[in-house]
Amino acid sequence: MLDLEFLFHPQSIAIVGTPRDLSNIAGGAGFLAALIAFGYEGRIYPINPNATEIMGLKSYPDLMSLPETPDYVIACIPATLTPGLIRECGARGVKAVGLYTAGFSEAGEEGEKLEQALAGIAREVGVRLIGPNCMGIYCPATGVSYQRGQSKEPGPVALLCQSGGNSNILALMGRDRGIRFSKIISYGNAVDLNETDFIEYLTGDADTAVIGAYIEGVKGGPRFLPALATAADSKPVIVLKGGLTDAGTRAIASHTGSLATPREKWDSLCRQAGAMQVYNLDEMLDLIVTALYMRPAEGRRVGIVGWGGGASVLNAEACESAGLKVPAFSPGLRQQMVDFAYGPGASISNPVDSPVVTDTSLFSRTLGLIADSGEVDIILVQLPLATPHTVGDAGLWDRARETVLDVSKSLSTPLVAVQPSTAHPESSDVYNRFQHKCADIGLPVYATARDAALAVSRFTEYHALRRSRKTLR
Amino acid sequence: MLDLEFLFHPQSIAIVGTPRDLSNIAGGAGFLAALIAFGYEGRIYPINPNATEIMGLKSYPDLMSLPETPDYVIACIPATLTPGLIRECGARGVKAVGLYTAGFSEAGEEGEKLEQALAGIAREVGVRLIGPNCMGIYCPATGVSYQRGQSKEPGPVALLCQSGGNSNILALMGRDRGIRFSKIISYGNAVDLNETDFIEYLTGDADTAVIGAYIEGVKGGPRFLPALATAADSKPVIVLKGGLTDAGTRAIASHTGSLATPREKWDSLCRQAGAMQVYNLDEMLDLIVTALYMRPAEGRRVGIVGWGGGASVLNAEACESAGLKVPAFSPGLRQQMVDFAYGPGASISNPVDSPVVTDTSLFSRTLGLIADSGEVDIILVQLPLATPHTVGDAGLWDRARETVLDVSKSLSTPLVAVQPSTAHPESSDVYNRFQHKCADIGLPVYATARDAALAVSRFTEYHALRRSRKTLR
Repeated sequence: MLDLEFLFHPQSIAIVGTPRDLSNIAGGAGFLAALIAFGYEGRIYPINPNATEIMGLKSYPDLMSLPETPDYVIACIPATLTPGLIRECGARGVKAVGLYTAGFSEAGEEGEKLEQALAGIAREVGVRLIGPNCMGIYCPATGVSYQRGQSKEPGPVALLCQSGGNSNILALMGRDRGIRFSKIISYGNAVDLNETDFIEYLTGDADTAVIGAYIEGVKGGPRFLPALATAADSKPVIVLKGGLTDAGTRAIASHTGSLATPREKWDSLCRQAGAMQVYNLDEMLDLIVTALYMRPAEGRRVGIVGWGGGASVLNAEACESAGLKVPAFSPGLRQQMVDFAYGPGASISNPVDSPVVTDTSLFSRTLGLIADSGEVDIILVQLPLATPHTVGDAGLWDRARETVLDVSKSLSTPLVAVQPSTAHPESSDVYNRFQHKCADIGLPVYATARDAALAVSRFTEYHALRRSRKTLR
Repeated sequence: MLDLEFLFHPQSIAIVGTPRDLSNIAGGAGFLAALIAFGYEGRIYPINPNATEIMGLKSYPDLMSLPETPDYVIACIPATLTPGLIRECGARGVKAVGLYTAGFSEAGEEGEKLEQALAGIAREVGVRLIGPNCMGIYCPATGVSYQRGQSKEPGPVALLCQSGGNSNILALMGRDRGIRFSKIISYGNAVDLNETDFIEYLTGDADTAVIGAYIEGVKGGPRFLPALATAADSKPVIVLKGGLTDAGTRAIASHTGSLATPREKWDSLCRQAGAMQVYNLDEMLDLIVTALYMRPAEGRRVGIVGWGGGASVLNAEACESAGLKVPAFSPGLRQQMVDFAYGPGASISNPVDSPVVTDTSLFSRTLGLIADSGEVDIILVQLPLATPHTVGDAGLWDRARETVLDVSKSLSTPLVAVQPSTAHPESSDVYNRFQHKCADIGLPVYATARDAALAVSRFTEYHALRRSRKTLR
């Protein structure tokens, strides 16, 4: 296994191809702006043969004229110039280059040839490549970033992502859901370092508790499956595969020059490895939140406590459609609920339509009873719609939310929450405040019952698989 | 067919069982507060034997002491008192009563008996019932509302909804997506007026262009299918059925005392009728937006123009997974794109990864070319993630959005837009501003490609079915 630790701790970074004209924020200017905005504490060297200063930093004409060998080089020059650059890196002793430069295998036959030539040169001169056609490294602990707006706060989630754009969408949407990252690696066409190398590295990375991966084409060959299996055995691994459909296959070819894996083969490979699959970026974030915060459930039985009869019906159907079970509560458990709060005709046989959701004491007692009943493995709580102007006492909804936060810490059964909201700014505000509190205490929260049920079902399946494997050993 | 027009134009409303204690905002106090907040221009009569004034309005001990016969009565009294109330309504000449009161067939055998007795009395004395166990009528044109926060502005969408809670979630989430309603009818257990009556009425309602329905149990018997088919023949009808799974079936029984329809039977019935099905409230709103704004497409071929290679891959897969087709563009069309903007290795064979999305002129030319090519029936545009702090020139993203708004009016092919966002307040702000503009000009917009693809696929299927039926006639 490669030791890639050095990639994430550069003391100095050179950006080859930083433009003087900063009106276009993509490319070299974007990398430079991101490092400066991030407060990267190492040395930054813009490289441009026609400049002496860029964004207030001294600029150099080429690598050779730098006062030191940079630990990491970001290449933002035309594709045809990259072979020369890699030779220069070799001569200068540079260990790693991230190639933002595109126009390789994704661009057709000529590009494919150039890419192979580049790989050969890199091997020859002993330089490791990330990319080409990628954004490279985001590592908040060491201040490395490729995009302004990424969080400066490190956390337990690592992403490897064959798409720079998707990596950034996940970084930013994740940021606003309270997800923090150890590393994000945007690795593009993967001509040298590939998904398998990064998965192996992240498996041993103590800073990483959950791994997410967006993969278009597997480059690691026969090493991939054992690497994925070893990773999934040590921490939750969530995989989103691009290129499972016809048009998707066409798109990955022209995006990262990737070859598709037939869907059945891919599904079987993920099952064998014990990796969880998702099918879009929102599902990826939902499952990351789940893997981070949800305690493993012993089974698939869900107890549902919600607000509103119609909402309860739809919560139950979302769970069952996602493959979870919603068993009827026993007469004994129902009687216990009737005894302290619910009318004789109340909907309490699971799902529970709980008008007491706004009464802290009765609501927490309801949740405690269900958790202790042994009749379910998971509790799903659906909060009232966060919306302004519908109730006299807005504090009602806040109390319901606070109760869920309080109770979740002590319940004997894993709990997840669903918080519907509208696009109204006041609704978004309630939504965001609660979501941040959930991230603070480690409570999984979702926008809809469908999202929650899908993620919980996949995570529970993952743990069932782990348990059955341990039994087999 | 019943003429139910009178239900929506009451000149006076009595609320029987308005509490003096207004600390609980549910029930009678909620109805009264909603009518006042809504500025209802008719006469409002709170009824409470122990009060003389409630919320500044003169209160009456009973119906008989009112200065006039109210056009509509809202019942918020215990279930056991409702038979007496309906007899009193008959004696007073009241034509319609909405029963908020619960505790009927949803609450077990005793309730079932009471409900049947109530129905018999209502028939006997000539009073029509909405409910019981419901919120009744929201009709912004006449100022009738059952919940503060509902929009005062009328619009073309009607909802019938067996769940009061779901009706209100749809009203509020819809409000914040720019959806406006002609009528919403929350009709609960449907002991008298039922889904079939309301569908028949809304079919002929000139103020209603699109009908949405949340149905737990069909009460109209053999009249239901022809009513649904006639409705779907005259305007788009979108149906969400509660009770398609085991737990859902249990939940509808204890929610509205409804009996389930087997899933296969329900699916076949909707197909026969030509009604569109959805499976949760978000899908309902997505499909309403689609039915309101999307021009019918001639086929299922989608041209995808997006921003980012990885996003393009996932857009294509979302479309194909939803049953749409994403055909490769012809060499001729690709050459035309290369001629004016795209590099030779660009991803333009559908999906199009369009870096020119922020260049008004090139972007609109791209969309125009695809629309005029005849190679697709629908265009799906994915906008860049609405997020702050990631670009130097925030105006870039606004220009992309403005271009889509401008071009959508004149394109020869129906266009839909996808606008990803994060939970960041600034992102929500960009999102909301664009969504409101889309509602203003009638452009369908969605939060994710999955949402868009599902709704577009269902709407396109609906039109294909209509066309094939017309051919058969």
